[in-house]
Amino acid sequence: MPLRSVDDYVRSLRDGRTVFFRGARVPDVTTHPVMSVAVRHASIDYRLAEDARHRDLCVVRDADGEYSRYYQIPRSPDDLLKRSALIELATAEGGTLVVLIKEIGTDAIAGLLRVSSAVDATHGTKYSARVKAFHAHCRDNDLAVAVAQTDVKGDRSLGPAAQADPDLYVHVVDRRPDGIVVRGAKAHTSVSTNANELIVLPTRALSEADRDYAVSFAIPIDTPGLVLLASAYDSTALRGSEAEHPISARHKMMETTTVFNDVFVPWERVFLAGEHEFAGPVALAFVEHHRFTAISYKLPLVDALVGSAMMMAEVNGIARAGHVRDKLAHLISYAETLRGLTRYAAIAGKVREAGVAVPDTLYVNMAKYHFAHGYHEAVRNVQDIAGGAIVTGPGAEDLENPETARYYEKYYVGRGTSGRDRLKALAFVRNLVASEFAAYQEVLAVHAEGSLEAEKQMVVRSYDGKAAVALVKRMAGLST
Amino acid sequence: MPLRSVDDYVRSLRDGRTVFFRGARVPDVTTHPVMSVAVRHASIDYRLAEDARHRDLCVVRDADGEYSRYYQIPRSPDDLLKRSALIELATAEGGTLVVLIKEIGTDAIAGLLRVSSAVDATHGTKYSARVKAFHAHCRDNDLAVAVAQTDVKGDRSLGPAAQADPDLYVHVVDRRPDGIVVRGAKAHTSVSTNANELIVLPTRALSEADRDYAVSFAIPIDTPGLVLLASAYDSTALRGSEAEHPISARHKMMETTTVFNDVFVPWERVFLAGEHEFAGPVALAFVEHHRFTAISYKLPLVDALVGSAMMMAEVNGIARAGHVRDKLAHLISYAETLRGLTRYAAIAGKVREAGVAVPDTLYVNMAKYHFAHGYHEAVRNVQDIAGGAIVTGPGAEDLENPETARYYEKYYVGRGTSGRDRLKALAFVRNLVASEFAAYQEVLAVHAEGSLEAEKQMVVRSYDGKAAVALVKRMAGLST
Amino acid sequence: MPLRSVDDYVRSLRDGRTVFFRGARVPDVTTHPVMSVAVRHASIDYRLAEDARHRDLCVVRDADGEYSRYYQIPRSPDDLLKRSALIELATAEGGTLVVLIKEIGTDAIAGLLRVSSAVDATHGTKYSARVKAFHAHCRDNDLAVAVAQTDVKGDRSLGPAAQADPDLYVHVVDRRPDGIVVRGAKAHTSVSTNANELIVLPTRALSEADRDYAVSFAIPIDTPGLVLLASAYDSTALRGSEAEHPISARHKMMETTTVFNDVFVPWERVFLAGEHEFAGPVALAFVEHHRFTAISYKLPLVDALVGSAMMMAEVNGIARAGHVRDKLAHLISYAETLRGLTRYAAIAGKVREAGVAVPDTLYVNMAKYHFAHGYHEAVRNVQDIAGGAIVTGPGAEDLENPETARYYEKYYVGRGTSGRDRLKALAFVRNLVASEFAAYQEVLAVHAEGSLEAEKQMVVRSYDGKAAVALVKRMAGLST
Amino acid sequence: MPLRSVDDYVRSLRDGRTVFFRGARVPDVTTHPVMSVAVRHASIDYRLAEDARHRDLCVVRDADGEYSRYYQIPRSPDDLLKRSALIELATAEGGTLVVLIKEIGTDAIAGLLRVSSAVDATHGTKYSARVKAFHAHCRDNDLAVAVAQTDVKGDRSLGPAAQADPDLYVHVVDRRPDGIVVRGAKAHTSVSTNANELIVLPTRALSEADRDYAVSFAIPIDTPGLVLLASAYDSTALRGSEAEHPISARHKMMETTTVFNDVFVPWERVFLAGEHEFAGPVALAFVEHHRFTAISYKLPLVDALVGSAMMMAEVNGIARAGHVRDKLAHLISYAETLRGLTRYAAIAGKVREAGVAVPDTLYVNMAKYHFAHGYHEAVRNVQDIAGGAIVTGPGAEDLENPETARYYEKYYVGRGTSGRDRLKALAFVRNLVASEFAAYQEVLAVHAEGSLEAEKQMVVRSYDGKAAVALVKRMAGLST
Repeated sequence: MPLRSVDDYVRSLRDGRTVFFRGARVPDVTTHPVMSVAVRHASIDYRLAEDARHRDLCVVRDADGEYSRYYQIPRSPDDLLKRSALIELATAEGGTLVVLIKEIGTDAIAGLLRVSSAVDATHGTKYSARVKAFHAHCRDNDLAVAVAQTDVKGDRSLGPAAQADPDLYVHVVDRRPDGIVVRGAKAHTSVSTNANELIVLPTRALSEADRDYAVSFAIPIDTPGLVLLASAYDSTALRGSEAEHPISARHKMMETTTVFNDVFVPWERVFLAGEHEFAGPVALAFVEHHRFTAISYKLPLVDALVGSAMMMAEVNGIARAGHVRDKLAHLISYAETLRGLTRYAAIAGKVREAGVAVPDTLYVNMAKYHFAHGYHEAVRNVQDIAGGAIVTGPGAEDLENPETARYYEKYYVGRGTSGRDRLKALAFVRNLVASEFAAYQEVLAVHAEGSLEAEKQMVVRSYDGKAAVALVKRMAGLST
Repeated sequence: MPLRSVDDYVRSLRDGRTVFFRGARVPDVTTHPVMSVAVRHASIDYRLAEDARHRDLCVVRDADGEYSRYYQIPRSPDDLLKRSALIELATAEGGTLVVLIKEIGTDAIAGLLRVSSAVDATHGTKYSARVKAFHAHCRDNDLAVAVAQTDVKGDRSLGPAAQADPDLYVHVVDRRPDGIVVRGAKAHTSVSTNANELIVLPTRALSEADRDYAVSFAIPIDTPGLVLLASAYDSTALRGSEAEHPISARHKMMETTTVFNDVFVPWERVFLAGEHEFAGPVALAFVEHHRFTAISYKLPLVDALVGSAMMMAEVNGIARAGHVRDKLAHLISYAETLRGLTRYAAIAGKVREAGVAVPDTLYVNMAKYHFAHGYHEAVRNVQDIAGGAIVTGPGAEDLENPETARYYEKYYVGRGTSGRDRLKALAFVRNLVASEFAAYQEVLAVHAEGSLEAEKQMVVRSYDGKAAVALVKRMAGLST
Repeated sequence: MPLRSVDDYVRSLRDGRTVFFRGARVPDVTTHPVMSVAVRHASIDYRLAEDARHRDLCVVRDADGEYSRYYQIPRSPDDLLKRSALIELATAEGGTLVVLIKEIGTDAIAGLLRVSSAVDATHGTKYSARVKAFHAHCRDNDLAVAVAQTDVKGDRSLGPAAQADPDLYVHVVDRRPDGIVVRGAKAHTSVSTNANELIVLPTRALSEADRDYAVSFAIPIDTPGLVLLASAYDSTALRGSEAEHPISARHKMMETTTVFNDVFVPWERVFLAGEHEFAGPVALAFVEHHRFTAISYKLPLVDALVGSAMMMAEVNGIARAGHVRDKLAHLISYAETLRGLTRYAAIAGKVREAGVAVPDTLYVNMAKYHFAHGYHEAVRNVQDIAGGAIVTGPGAEDLENPETARYYEKYYVGRGTSGRDRLKALAFVRNLVASEFAAYQEVLAVHAEGSLEAEKQMVVRSYDGKAAVALVKRMAGLST
Repeated sequence: MPLRSVDDYVRSLRDGRTVFFRGARVPDVTTHPVMSVAVRHASIDYRLAEDARHRDLCVVRDADGEYSRYYQIPRSPDDLLKRSALIELATAEGGTLVVLIKEIGTDAIAGLLRVSSAVDATHGTKYSARVKAFHAHCRDNDLAVAVAQTDVKGDRSLGPAAQADPDLYVHVVDRRPDGIVVRGAKAHTSVSTNANELIVLPTRALSEADRDYAVSFAIPIDTPGLVLLASAYDSTALRGSEAEHPISARHKMMETTTVFNDVFVPWERVFLAGEHEFAGPVALAFVEHHRFTAISYKLPLVDALVGSAMMMAEVNGIARAGHVRDKLAHLISYAETLRGLTRYAAIAGKVREAGVAVPDTLYVNMAKYHFAHGYHEAVRNVQDIAGGAIVTGPGAEDLENPETARYYEKYYVGRGTSGRDRLKALAFVRNLVASEFAAYQEVLAVHAEGSLEAEKQMVVRSYDGKAAVALVKRMAGLST
């Protein structure tokens, strides 16, 4: 089957899916004033594949036919570098916002591919073949795929089975000859309102008592009982023109609280169901790929921070001030250390289970931590250089009414810049570092693809501590 | 004259002032959907003075009669501590947002009082008496006062007179027998739309060539030629219920680009006009008081960060996690170091020119820098503990429609907390650390009352370096 | 009894105490080439008390006669401020090194005074009277007192009773009619080799199983069975002239591993023996006083860092460079934040058990953490400004031999400074930030008077979290 | 000519060179108690080349014969990776201390090769051929080479020609038919006392007025007039056994103040003499290579920090404590970010002037800054985990005398570790992070191979700012 066009994609979303936004059922996500922004943003993926300049990067042709590179299972460091470059390209097109409709799904597929054969070997199951079939289905139909992992969790000091309400983690409530029935809810599922399929993964390591929570599967978004409660956060498109929100009026990612009301899943779409000792490995394998996606898609964002600071330093006439150069040096190091570590993580990647190339876990997690830990400081430096006017400037209408526009044109003139252009630059920087969209990016930095603590834990676990201790023992003259 | 009531204050703002918002002239700021939020917020000052519990702190009775404590010129460390406590109280009432309608004006008056006698002594002017008369006028009429200091500046690498357009700094364009005529624009003037008077101060040290820019004065807000262009930023009241924006739907500070279209100022309201060598001292003296106001009013904000983190750690069930306690320790130290330095700056204050008690400049600037430098990291820690749900949660309508509300009630339950209460807590924390209001607070941290660089410069200048060098020379056996 | 002279003090140390240094028994600590440096350093305390300029600060005269202010039990914030000032003065005389021979002992006495009455009330013991008698003995005889608290601990993941060897924490091995017998060892006991008395305190909270480890007492240093194993670290005096080590050739603090070989302690010197639930409170009460001592005595050290940086910036001709001013701003803020928090901790102190004034625990711990956490960065900034020559410069003999001295005099000339003076300045700075003494200060910053973690824990515990949560709940409209 | 043996090397240093140590002329550096430690340390280079396990890495065989890999001019990223690996290996053998006797010289040669052809093209000089001849001489004779770059500088706010004494920067005082005569002094020249040749480079960009200071050349160490004044710093070998200083008793780098008393240099050894506009480029080209050497040789040091922290966490029984794991995560990220950036800098290297492969300047400088900026914090974390005993423990003799040894053996037992082994571990860690050697490493981190500021400047300069600004202008809808 050929790659889908933007129109194919948009049409495929009109399927009766159950989506709510601000308390109202959404009849068509492709025409809804807020949700359609997310659809248009997601279309970038299909548009780029049709662009001759990017075709080589976006599309692969091999024994399985011609298909989106996202669906190529990475087999080498070079595959990882290309995948990273593709994610970076799409996110730059997305105005610093990741597209994600193929990135996250293929991360989940890679993780499931790696673990399922071990599950099969231990339990005599047939998960591996099902994962491969699902992969082929998505690849061949050029689908958009969301992933629901994080459970709503209730009291986080307790495990799934110990919660007052057993539904606070998604779990199997019935096993039937033809499939399973699941109940519960997952929090902040990205791109679900404009995906075709939804992959569900367990959150974490589980004990024997939690075996019903060890469940993984994939279902179409219009599956009965699947309810998507869309987040109301940053509904920019409703309220502002592109003049005020040059990024978020055109680019949006929707999250949902994803409710499973006794949803039936046929066995051919079940990838784990009760093998509790593999819940942790599945969760982890997904994350090993997904954090690499994360560090790849953060690159245009950090580049935009550096570029914004440089642009504003210039128009404000402060590019030569010592403290400004110091902040630029800091921003550049912040951005390029992320790039260097991301590239090196790919280069140092290894082929592991099921022949899947996995980026180096230590470097991926260091890169992700570096990004997440330093993001707010980078934002502060950009705000600092941009000036207070990013939060005290005019609205779009002020520049339309000549009575007010003439003041703004006269008084917002900068170094080698007209008042209008400086205000345009300010509007962009405001949207990037001082808006709801900006706050969203801050929170994503801290929470998306795993928290700061999760990354630190992985750094310690994936480090070769024995070699380091052996080195110092040898130097110290101690037997090792 | 007695203290004004809230109604007196609100009525006083209906005076024909020239205010624009989003390209449209605002006929009455007290009824405008956005601007009235700022008016109601500012009313806190008048309401508190009528509250028996706070009367002693808010009101002073002495030889000048009964008047708002803000108008009391501080004469001792104890006066400074009381002023600080009053500012802290009002800001806590303001939901972490400073009220400012008397704070900033009295900071300017204190600064002008201190410098004007020196100007008079040097130039034979009568500024000191005028400042005193203006002070009595504001005090006796219990007025709300804004201060315009920061010029729009154009190319910041050039001084006022060197700009392409001479109006990029406010300056005297005519001197008449009865007064002066001024032209130019000041950026981000706070509370001007709901003040009664506007004090204008020069921005910085000026040279002989810039003497027309060495100008300070006060005018009523309805003065002809004075145009207030209100910022469109964070117009929350227009779009959200209090449920979604528990802070910013009720509390707002308006900034304006403040344009002086050949505004006439009578001599009795002129406090500096051409004595360029005093422009720097006036700017500095104001800041010495105003940064103390700043560190006082930041205390409820940093307390709210700590309280939010503790509340969310509890409802999320993570209060005992090691990394959470670590972040709490960091947040507490951040908040309480600010409090300790603020208090100590008052205690170490000294009576200086014109008998005005001035908080210790070194400690004030260290406190301000400590606050500003660490703010984003504190925000990150709160976002971290609060969880990703602060940006992926429901809108107000989702909790009104039973069809969606039941999901949210079921799935957002926390440790010892109902789903509704947890969402209410999340909404508050979102407004505090992940909203346009939150971004506004970030930018204010960096820019308001002077930048990080300005504070560092003052730290170096106000430190007794000779004593420190003498100490080490003595220890090193070097002659000092 | 009158205050002791320096000679009285030195003589009192010749008492047959059991001290080892580098494997050899030390017959007389007052004449030993290394240990005598510590004795001379400690004498500062007695010398200052005789100095008319400092008499008022150093000596108190009241109903108990005339005695060293260290022995005054603080009863008010003002007493705490004076005690802090005295400690600061003595440490400045000590070339940034604390004298400690009365500071630490009186911290322990204050802690024991506060807890012992509670022990007595619970257990019907007579500890309180014994502590008072011991206090009077030390005060009236103007004694030097060391405190041994930290046990050697073995495997720190295990409690005292769970260790392979029961002696890894000091414990009671026999209870006799006339007293107790104790065994074990304490690590890094400061000033013990030149003290008259040694107070022993338990390390931490103990369980019922650990009751024999809940022991506190005081003994003279020459008590049979008490063995002091002096540290070999930084034996500067043996190897360098004052020219190379202007600080450490004259100032030294000795630590010992303090071994208790079945030491007998008469009952009148026992302050805790088995009341395990009070071990934690005793340890904590000591620390509440001792960390205040710590932040007081760190002030001359941080002042010296600032002074060194300023002096070197000047002689190197880089005082006007932007990055140098930035580092100075950082160093000043580091030093003065410590001073402000220390002073404010005293001012906010409260009178607590047994009428003892206790500095505010939250501020003390924040100050201590601020100091400890930032010390290495401050050192880096001083090293940076001083230049690489602090580790590549000449030895003392190079300046004595004219053949080499002429090169150094010619080539080490600085801005407004001769080569000799610049080398003298470099030698001081080297000793302060790039020598064994400097490394010792780094390690002390991290470990002395409690670790960074201990301080963070106390910050969280001593903070009024309820008030902060109530504030945000009120703002959020949640019932508290 | 074959590679030299260790003996060949040692013998070659007995040539009558003029070296002073502590005011005395050193007749033979290979037998001097301090200087011979540096000689033995340097011998590592020759010993490794003879070791079959490392032969492939250490030795190259090509058209120029068989020679040390250091002398291979890098022509590709792979050559850079191998050079980096070799430097890492040698430094690990050196107990964290770089060997440097070929590293720095070949960095200078690479820099000179790259710039000299441009000088020749501009000025018609023959420098390029001379540099090549000198390179062949060093390579074919397997020589040890030092580099003197940093001038003593006097008042750093003034340029060379503006100093009170014209000799504060090395300069040409005479030009003769057969060569030039130079005078002045260079500060902290590493490995000069045990090198065969000395390359001299200018420090920085120079103006027309400074043309006599634009001088570069190479001379044998025994050249008349060349005086090496060795640093007295950390003369460990004289005073301590290997038991106390397991690193610095065996490994040492000597620095000298290097004086040129009217030294004659024949023209064939002159590489720059008056072409002032090339002084900056030569200085810079050297640094582009030398900072890559630096980040390569820091790897064993940062590995040793991580290994030390892990080893001590284990023996202290605290490896499972949350804060310890947090510090380990930080240390690992610190070390491995350096490694990742170093490797990526090589991989991203480009072939530039004269066909020399140059590591990516941006990544090299970011890596160097990352290392230098974070070093002190890393040291603090190791000190923290190691415990206070690193500065309060025994001397070597304490473990030789059974009377004291039995106490230490009993009381320093750790988790799964005897007292002796724990003390051995502590001794190593003390030497690494709390000794004069440790302080030396701190100062080197800040100053060697360029300061923190120099690295930040290079980060800004080598970044492609235009691309970043173009990206945001495109996103903002501004014409670029």
